[in-house]
Amino acid sequence: MFRIGQSIDIHQLVEGRDLYIGGVKIDHDKGLLGHSDADVLLHAIIESIIGALGLGDIGKHFPDTDPQYKGISSMVLLEHCYQLMDKEGYEINNLDSIIMCEAPKMAPHIQKMRENVASKLHCDISQINIKATRGEKLGFVGRQEGMVAQAVVLLRKKGV
Amino acid sequence: MFRIGQSIDIHQLVEGRDLYIGGVKIDHDKGLLGHSDADVLLHAIIESIIGALGLGDIGKHFPDTDPQYKGISSMVLLEHCYQLMDKEGYEINNLDSIIMCEAPKMAPHIQKMRENVASKLHCDISQINIKATRGEKLGFVGRQEGMVAQAVVLLRKKGV
Amino acid sequence: MFRIGQSIDIHQLVEGRDLYIGGVKIDHDKGLLGHSDADVLLHAIIESIIGALGLGDIGKHFPDTDPQYKGISSMVLLEHCYQLMDKEGYEINNLDSIIMCEAPKMAPHIQKMRENVASKLHCDISQINIKATRGEKLGFVGRQEGMVAQAVVLLRKKGV
Repeated sequence: MFRIGQSIDIHQLVEGRDLYIGGVKIDHDKGLLGHSDADVLLHAIIESIIGALGLGDIGKHFPDTDPQYKGISSMVLLEHCYQLMDKEGYEINNLDSIIMCEAPKMAPHIQKMRENVASKLHCDISQINIKATRGEKLGFVGRQEGMVAQAVVLLRKKGV
Repeated sequence: MFRIGQSIDIHQLVEGRDLYIGGVKIDHDKGLLGHSDADVLLHAIIESIIGALGLGDIGKHFPDTDPQYKGISSMVLLEHCYQLMDKEGYEINNLDSIIMCEAPKMAPHIQKMRENVASKLHCDISQINIKATRGEKLGFVGRQEGMVAQAVVLLRKKGV
Repeated sequence: MFRIGQSIDIHQLVEGRDLYIGGVKIDHDKGLLGHSDADVLLHAIIESIIGALGLGDIGKHFPDTDPQYKGISSMVLLEHCYQLMDKEGYEINNLDSIIMCEAPKMAPHIQKMRENVASKLHCDISQINIKATRGEKLGFVGRQEGMVAQAVVLLRKKGV
């Protein structure tokens, strides 16, 4: 009836890239490096759902060597992920996630991120939680060399 | 009926601070740096519950810029967190957590930490698990520059 | 009826050791350092189950100071872990995990790892998910100094 999933994703922060987190373009002097838009939060969320379904990892479904995903918005990948979940007969019970970054401030954008995720996963915003924390100057997050996001999800079988 | 939540918290280890973990004052030459008592384990536990409830993050409920939380015991914050959960109509199904620190040894204090958490969350000690692991000399945990704690929680609706 | 658990495990990568992940011996110029075979993924999986049962941590059940565990295959520890879970009256609902390593490639070995874990936990392979991600050259994982694994598990009471 229920399935649990989790993920962690890491991306480098570099100059010359736009910063997308939770489907929101955030004004910053650096962005995350990756084959797609490198939206570290959406990747963790997507992969936690793939994991809960027992379907491997994000790289298996959206290979970073596949030209069709080059520069793609992770919001599109999240929509594919919903279709995967729907086809397997599951829906979101609830999802909790966290962004680890030293800067910029995430708080002003959290509500919009939740709306983005809930809309693509066809659930209520109350079922999607997004948190943010700083690296406290420690490690690569603290040195602003990269960002990390983690997510856990509880899926439930539809119609049960 | 069920809600899942998670969190990760990080604090620097510095001289001139007392070390509080899981509400236990532990004898050590350094303590964790923060606005409150910087109890990294209780913060992860509190935030996992806030996350499961879909109510944002710890910074939203207990801002580290608010003078009323300066130097406060995180045991008091855990009590506020229980009230939040109770008001939303949820109780602890069970909670699992881990402290990542190179030193000092956590094992002698784990039982007391579990009692502390269970008492504030009004549940049985068997519903609260606390683990400890070392950083294996790797990263900022391994270099004893900081500590990390993680928690996951499963809440259940009361009376269901 | 349900119990949630989680874990994170870390091991150094060093020369002169064989590399075991998920019970698979993987060809590589380095291996993980530890008292047992240092199978970072199986340790995270085992400890997530111990955590879900509320029975402490892996060090409590399999102390790394105990000579009987020196060089032991973590597949044997996983079997002990199953017996612990079975005795407590729980079974695997599903488990999700992730290996964080820069190299070598995990993808060719994931299916065999899932089979290994499912066989020892007496469940179907569809209940065991294993993911892999890279450290993106960041931190000790990115520098190939060590590997990290994380797991979450949902147990259910047998016969309920």
